[in-house]
Amino acid sequence: MTANRIPVIEIFGPTIQGEGMVVGQKTMFVRTAGCDYSCAWCDSAFTWDGTGKNEIRMMTADEIVAALRDTGGETFSHVTVSGGNPALLAHLDELIALLHREGIEVALETQGSRWQDWFLQIDQLTISPKPPSSGMNTDWAVLDNIVESLTANRRSLSLKVVVFDEADWQYACGVHKRYPHVPFYLQPGNDDLTEADPALLLARLLERYKALVDKTMASAELRAVRILPQLHTWLWGNKRGV
Amino acid sequence: MTANRIPVIEIFGPTIQGEGMVVGQKTMFVRTAGCDYSCAWCDSAFTWDGTGKNEIRMMTADEIVAALRDTGGETFSHVTVSGGNPALLAHLDELIALLHREGIEVALETQGSRWQDWFLQIDQLTISPKPPSSGMNTDWAVLDNIVESLTANRRSLSLKVVVFDEADWQYACGVHKRYPHVPFYLQPGNDDLTEADPALLLARLLERYKALVDKTMASAELRAVRILPQLHTWLWGNKRGV
Repeated sequence: MTANRIPVIEIFGPTIQGEGMVVGQKTMFVRTAGCDYSCAWCDSAFTWDGTGKNEIRMMTADEIVAALRDTGGETFSHVTVSGGNPALLAHLDELIALLHREGIEVALETQGSRWQDWFLQIDQLTISPKPPSSGMNTDWAVLDNIVESLTANRRSLSLKVVVFDEADWQYACGVHKRYPHVPFYLQPGNDDLTEADPALLLARLLERYKALVDKTMASAELRAVRILPQLHTWLWGNKRGV
Repeated sequence: MTANRIPVIEIFGPTIQGEGMVVGQKTMFVRTAGCDYSCAWCDSAFTWDGTGKNEIRMMTADEIVAALRDTGGETFSHVTVSGGNPALLAHLDELIALLHREGIEVALETQGSRWQDWFLQIDQLTISPKPPSSGMNTDWAVLDNIVESLTANRRSLSLKVVVFDEADWQYACGVHKRYPHVPFYLQPGNDDLTEADPALLLARLLERYKALVDKTMASAELRAVRILPQLHTWLWGNKRGV
């Protein structure tokens, strides 16, 4: 049997999941390299723009679990797979199965541009379609199929949209209207990925979060919604690996 | 038919739920008066210490829903009942049923000192047993029964413990060990309920949150845990009614 290898660019933790449906969760992170998107404001562009290529290691599921244990010891029971877009990887099922055998839950975030059968094995799946400010286009047929398949199989699923501007807001309203029964999360965009002072960044992020909260509170269109910041950037700024 | 009345001390919103299992949720708040506890650090002591007695209105379920609509219009589909301890109120089932008939979800938080049959109708129930720093004693037999009944009925349930100090931390570990299969939330205590400057308060709350995150990350005892701040105090400080 040949062991399949996965392009891994970061393994770190334990830390908190800073955003989305499992916000605050104690978790380890496995970040995979490679993306089919190139969002204008991507906060992990090193996973796909070539700047991180020397950090990529091709690892088997066994090697990834060993690396997680090396880093996190026995302090964790939750792993988050992030990217890049981990949905590009057909063989992620091996890692998911191995983690489950150790009693570890697995969360994953992807933009919803591609289906993988192993989506059905993920404990908390966040689909985060990208709004107009990203420069990307949503393939609604693909997204419809993903949401339908997950819902039919009663999987733990959420939709999350990052909002930078009015066009993004309209897009978010459209996503919620299209999939009204899927738990829906809004997140303010971080428009300053270079600010090195966490305190200055925090003041800015807090204002942006407040503005999104205010706008959402006044809306009759977005009612069943959760608005969350990126807690990790509030705590640690734009630093990587926390 | 006589309409039962509920002692209501505040109705406000829509705003975000700032803490716990539905953090970030757009919601209206109904705060009931009266508590069987008197926690040393209670952030809503006006509900039970007499200072808010002139604000209490005895309201029927119909009147509460009308007041919610007066305040929130059509912008909401979620209501949070808080206290005080709303579990003191035997007739809350009428309000819950009325809200459900309008398609509105109901969340509720209580300390787990008393059972009510209508717990089984709550969409998201947070049980928040109080740690030693509160000065209160936990009745474990009552809490065991509450957790068992809710779990047996597969209700959406979480446990949340506020942590101020080392004794609270040990208490939290004990709660998690006693009920390992119930989603478990830690929250740093706000030890400054009088600071009027939100920016000064935020710096302090951020440090306390970071410290609790760091301590939890290093622990092999607390693994399946979510650590969350009180987002509303980060945004609005110690202000009431937001």
